[in-house]
Amino acid sequence: MKGKRTNLGEKACAIARALGVIGDWWSMLIIRDALAGKRRFGEFQSSLGVAKNILSTRLQKLVEHGVLTVTSASDGSAYKEYVLTAKGEKLYLVTVALWQWGEEFCFAPGELTYDMVDKETCKPFQPLELRTRSGRVAGPRDLQPLPRVKSKVKHSKQGATARERSGGDIR
Amino acid sequence: MKGKRTNLGEKACAIARALGVIGDWWSMLIIRDALAGKRRFGEFQSSLGVAKNILSTRLQKLVEHGVLTVTSASDGSAYKEYVLTAKGEKLYLVTVALWQWGEEFCFAPGELTYDMVDKETCKPFQPLELRTRSGRVAGPRDLQPLPRVKSKVKHSKQGATARERSGGDIR
Repeated sequence: MKGKRTNLGEKACAIARALGVIGDWWSMLIIRDALAGKRRFGEFQSSLGVAKNILSTRLQKLVEHGVLTVTSASDGSAYKEYVLTAKGEKLYLVTVALWQWGEEFCFAPGELTYDMVDKETCKPFQPLELRTRSGRVAGPRDLQPLPRVKSKVKHSKQGATARERSGGDIR
Repeated sequence: MKGKRTNLGEKACAIARALGVIGDWWSMLIIRDALAGKRRFGEFQSSLGVAKNILSTRLQKLVEHGVLTVTSASDGSAYKEYVLTAKGEKLYLVTVALWQWGEEFCFAPGELTYDMVDKETCKPFQPLELRTRSGRVAGPRDLQPLPRVKSKVKHSKQGATARERSGGDIR
């Protein structure tokens, strides 16, 4: 299983590669807790109720992938602390997408006891929206993975993708 | 492990509950493929290179959770087809969040060979943004889970949360 996951993570798909880093249940919950300010092994353990060896493996993997970094304790004690890097913090959009989907579809009416709110105003956020460059809101059927045109390949038949035909100015 | 996952999925956190449905590597990749138009067991299998029994279990779970539904083949043949429900389609925002994060952080410069584009214009989407109700773009440190005030509990000390103080008009 481990081998398969690694192989798939190395493919061209950014979703598969992201899942190679954070694509297991515990890792996403560790990131949720880190975003909420938890930093220490014991804090993650008591929040998640997870076995020490499982937590230890996940934390180590997240450090290896640059999602968390290990620092000395902020209170000067001998504890290690696990802090989100810029790469790790950016996962907040994944956790929010999960939260909003879970809130909409995974609770019976009146069952949800928490909201995810803006710290400053204590009010929920707007639902995430995917927008095209022109600002149109895109739906699930508007997505398409498209091969990038390599700059070295010019005037080849293979290179004449829809993107070129549309005069694409891809990053 | 299975028991723990179920328990955690029943907690108050919408992220945990969402992960209880789609929080494993294969399920998210099945959803990615379903969003790309794949419908048949064989199509998922050849795309993912996953063992039949693993794929079968995941598809069944996604059907049980109402993410996929089973229909007769669109070509009138005897095949079953797995089609995203409205609940399943809405997961496109999770896959886009994963894609954009993976694209930004999990590839070396020039290594990425695909873009996720808008089908109509063949151009990449805008990065997802989390916005407060007033339209301010929120960052990773702006999130806070806040207990909902139960409508039955009035004038209790416990009910006097920050939300009430802010005159919150929570859904």
